Amino acid sequence: MLKIAYQGIKGAYTHEALLNFAKTLNIKVEPVNIDSTFYEVFKKAQNETDLAFIPIENSNAGSVIENFDHLMNFDFEITGEYILPVNHCFLAKKGAEFENIKEVYSHPQALAQCSDFLDTMGFIRNNLDTASGAKFVSQSKRNDIAALASEICADLYGLEVLKKNFQNSKDNVTRFFLIKKRGLKFDFENKFQKSDKVSLIVKTKHIPAALYKCLGAFATQNINLTKIESRPSRDKNFNYNFFIDFIGNLEKYNVKLALEELRFFSREYKILGNYKKFDL
Amino acid sequence: MLKIAYQGIKGAYTHEALLNFAKTLNIKVEPVNIDSTFYEVFKKAQNETDLAFIPIENSNAGSVIENFDHLMNFDFEITGEYILPVNHCFLAKKGAEFENIKEVYSHPQALAQCSDFLDTMGFIRNNLDTASGAKFVSQSKRNDIAALASEICADLYGLEVLKKNFQNSKDNVTRFFLIKKRGLKFDFENKFQKSDKVSLIVKTKHIPAALYKCLGAFATQNINLTKIESRPSRDKNFNYNFFIDFIGNLEKYNVKLALEELRFFSREYKILGNYKKFDL
Repeated sequence: MLKIAYQGIKGAYTHEALLNFAKTLNIKVEPVNIDSTFYEVFKKAQNETDLAFIPIENSNAGSVIENFDHLMNFDFEITGEYILPVNHCFLAKKGAEFENIKEVYSHPQALAQCSDFLDTMGFIRNNLDTASGAKFVSQSKRNDIAALASEICADLYGLEVLKKNFQNSKDNVTRFFLIKKRGLKFDFENKFQKSDKVSLIVKTKHIPAALYKCLGAFATQNINLTKIESRPSRDKNFNYNFFIDFIGNLEKYNVKLALEELRFFSREYKILGNYKKFDL
Repeated sequence: MLKIAYQGIKGAYTHEALLNFAKTLNIKVEPVNIDSTFYEVFKKAQNETDLAFIPIENSNAGSVIENFDHLMNFDFEITGEYILPVNHCFLAKKGAEFENIKEVYSHPQALAQCSDFLDTMGFIRNNLDTASGAKFVSQSKRNDIAALASEICADLYGLEVLKKNFQNSKDNVTRFFLIKKRGLKFDFENKFQKSDKVSLIVKTKHIPAALYKCLGAFATQNINLTKIESRPSRDKNFNYNFFIDFIGNLEKYNVKLALEELRFFSREYKILGNYKKFDL
């Protein structure tokens, strides 16, 4: 049983993603929820659980920059990637009828993401986070209220799923990393046939066309980037950090050559991990 | 009086940023709050207000990708940039004493951002969005509860500011764009002495080193990029969109040359605006 720390209360979407990912890996996990900051999740994994599961970007909301910062500052390694299509479920007490629902409880963002349907039905909206909404509905005596939350909340709080996939846009996905303390080895990692994706952080030099020169390292080796994002570093020299993902394996010759060139043109870089690409 | 649409309820941080920005421009604005999605804000500005004020990135939470999508799909132009340091204030009813506060109401993210202090003081935390928390405190009869919210919520809801700058990290900033329907001219725009920053979206070709070739256009003209972020486009050809900011003016010769080269190497690009860089 692998203890894995995550941020949020039980039933949060990260919790759902973690259980799904564990199922695809065919491993038993014990999710350890931290109802506090991502920083506390990293600390928990450092001192206790060895592993953590963190959201890294969402197709609408963008990158969780804070977690890249923690990956920069803590000594963890990415050992897996998972992508969860956000699926808001309409949950109510057992026996409740969809036609009788008058009010809905959820996170403002989830309510906004389901606005098309909520508007049509004229539901009264109430703000809570998604899992707290589910808990609230389960504790209430009312049969005319519902929560918009993850499907696992139905199990967690003994609710019924009245409708699935309630959101306006069907291509809202969140990408997660499973991370481990650097250097540790786990049995489940052998289940990944091959690691074909690399994430790294590059600090560029303060020279003209600094990024251009760094990217030349990948261009000359025909290595495909799948993500690049800049972030001003906080030192006073106006240097930049870049988060970069590329397709490749660290043992391959062309990747080694690219990283050699990158070392020359960058101020420094940190490999965050080499893991199996997740295909939706 | 310029009507400007924004997303959120009155007293949201976007509301505060908009009022601050209007003050630096010395213009009178009428903020029009849309308690719904960013999409609705764009529609409101298209049909009614001509202008909108939108968050575009936060130093911890990353880019608001959704708003880049809307900038891609709607025909708006960026006419101003503003950066707000997030400042959570501790608000309570007039006459309340800090020592007597037992419970705090705010958005989970705001509560997390102030966790250092909240932990030390042992406050009970309650989830609401920031401005709703302020409203709740103002309507309550209790003198032992507080809200964590923007400073303008004190005015809006008749509360007292017991403490300012409550957050753990002082370098949490949010960047906003003031946008207008493309082609419109406003008097206040003359107040910007010069436009020295350009935002654009670039669609790369599906060729090896596509991004590298596009960035060459800027590198050869010594143009400094201040932001680059990739996003997979939703078409089936695995093309990428890039959000890019650079320092320059569209009338300058070197910028014209760079854009000519960019046109050659990219599939297409869309200039989102040329505006005055905001310096904190």
